[in-house]
Amino acid sequence: MNNKIKWLREKLKGLNLQGMIVSNPTNIKYLTGIEAEGTLLITLRENIFITDSRYIESVNTILTIDDEILVNDKKHLSKDDYASFFMFCENVGFEEKYVTYYDYMNYMHMYRVNLMETEGIIESQRIVKDDREIENIKKACEITDKCFEYLKTFIKRGMTEKEIAFEIERFMKINGADGVSFEPIVASGHNSSMPHAVPTTRKIKEGDIILLDFGCRYKGYCSDITRTIFVNYVEDEYREVYDLVLKNNEMTLNDIKEGANIKVLTRNINDDLKLHGYVAMHAPGHGVGLDIHEQPIFTTNYDNMLKANMVVAIEPRNICSRKVWS
Amino acid sequence: MNNKIKWLREKLKGLNLQGMIVSNPTNIKYLTGIEAEGTLLITLRENIFITDSRYIESVNTILTIDDEILVNDKKHLSKDDYASFFMFCENVGFEEKYVTYYDYMNYMHMYRVNLMETEGIIESQRIVKDDREIENIKKACEITDKCFEYLKTFIKRGMTEKEIAFEIERFMKINGADGVSFEPIVASGHNSSMPHAVPTTRKIKEGDIILLDFGCRYKGYCSDITRTIFVNYVEDEYREVYDLVLKNNEMTLNDIKEGANIKVLTRNINDDLKLHGYVAMHAPGHGVGLDIHEQPIFTTNYDNMLKANMVVAIEPRNICSRKVWS
Repeated sequence: MNNKIKWLREKLKGLNLQGMIVSNPTNIKYLTGIEAEGTLLITLRENIFITDSRYIESVNTILTIDDEILVNDKKHLSKDDYASFFMFCENVGFEEKYVTYYDYMNYMHMYRVNLMETEGIIESQRIVKDDREIENIKKACEITDKCFEYLKTFIKRGMTEKEIAFEIERFMKINGADGVSFEPIVASGHNSSMPHAVPTTRKIKEGDIILLDFGCRYKGYCSDITRTIFVNYVEDEYREVYDLVLKNNEMTLNDIKEGANIKVLTRNINDDLKLHGYVAMHAPGHGVGLDIHEQPIFTTNYDNMLKANMVVAIEPRNICSRKVWS
Repeated sequence: MNNKIKWLREKLKGLNLQGMIVSNPTNIKYLTGIEAEGTLLITLRENIFITDSRYIESVNTILTIDDEILVNDKKHLSKDDYASFFMFCENVGFEEKYVTYYDYMNYMHMYRVNLMETEGIIESQRIVKDDREIENIKKACEITDKCFEYLKTFIKRGMTEKEIAFEIERFMKINGADGVSFEPIVASGHNSSMPHAVPTTRKIKEGDIILLDFGCRYKGYCSDITRTIFVNYVEDEYREVYDLVLKNNEMTLNDIKEGANIKVLTRNINDDLKLHGYVAMHAPGHGVGLDIHEQPIFTTNYDNMLKANMVVAIEPRNICSRKVWS
């Protein structure tokens, strides 16, 4: 059995769960490598992936004997088959933040077992990455860095934000990425004060501030970069806030170490901005992996210690833009 | 109050529901025009949109007094506020196929009311389109038709499926669409037998069959087109199946009339294919609107009568490819 499923099985035992229904496709990909519609059952005896005829062939190509996952075509499963999967199980976990109420009711009828909330058990497991995962994220970051270097030569006055956003997508696809990890943000001039701006037809002008926020996906794993650039010259007012953000970015990168408390790192940034008369508009970072936003989240609400092989993006990009533009 | 919300309120009364929690963003856009994170409450007295500070400004720009929707920043809502929204309500509907089990439990705690399943009440309302919706879909179809004309001159031997798929995305964006309505399918040669093929780096060759399946979005509304083209010549075997599919396509388009039963139309296609020794691999059509796949679905499982101003895509494209390629 692969290590990730072994780990999950141990964890389930500790929670007095005899099995789990995994429905979230990202969690299924994480545990098995499978990218197909279907449901993964971790039962007392076996791991079972239930899918349909469209995917059977491709799923069997991905799995190895070592995975110990039985693949079932749902067309061939009877009511009794479903009811027997969790035989001798008292409590079985499910993903309460992914499964709809409708599916939950269906699971109750089909599997005839006590369904228990699992409180993001797999998402917590996903925070610490293994070597192969880190390799994929590094590769995604490499392509993204190249893209930023390219953009610095590509962006010209007169281009629209939309054109630049589209060029980012094109670059990612022809340079080996699966695609972008989220719709690129290209926000120029006054638009750059909105943390989640959608690219418009506004044309780039001399002296513009341009906020770029983009990333790509490589073998499913995400990258995320935020950079602010200026067109030919920087107004003093912008330089002040740029330098303040940059200082906080570098300070945080320096403090990212095993054992560091994310709560403290976040509070440091917020306090330094306040000291200079600005207000944080946006969390300064987040975990990255199969999802573009993962745990750990940078918040001051609770303690959260960094562990080896966690992967986080630091992006205190627009945290204090409001002051500049208001 | 706008007509769509009025209609929904009437429908709720008939189901003995005194209110509804609308969580699905597509349904919120349909009812209000709002495109923002949040929840719409249809209460006894008022319509309330609960959102956060990021969206307040843009939401207020979209709404008019006629909409009669109160916008609330959730930051300013207390526990008591939530509990009072559905005061004097016995039963309140929710979207059981959209809301997660976790959110359902939260709703129970927050709103302190009986939550009742609504069985796609808004989705059913969305089947019949109004004039403005039809106008948007027509515009999306126009751009898509133009794209297909363009592709016939653009596609050349030696290009990869991925390159063509990317050109479709580019065309849509520079020709006034919001973007594509789904990831374009460009499947050439043997790949064209897979109904949901993902574009690969396979290069287009002389004599290839190319399955194109794509669409765009205009003001949120979708188009969907499927066409099969050949590179310079058509092998007899392909021509036979192409003509059979085309005949069924034209026959069905001809039969699409108010009062026609979708079950019968679907059975007609399936039977004609069987008569010629082929098997249907894919439903031959589906509704189109704010979602790319909407009701009505073409199925032989139940009666389903077409009404005026429903919008459907007919795509018996790959319904019998298996026989050809196996």
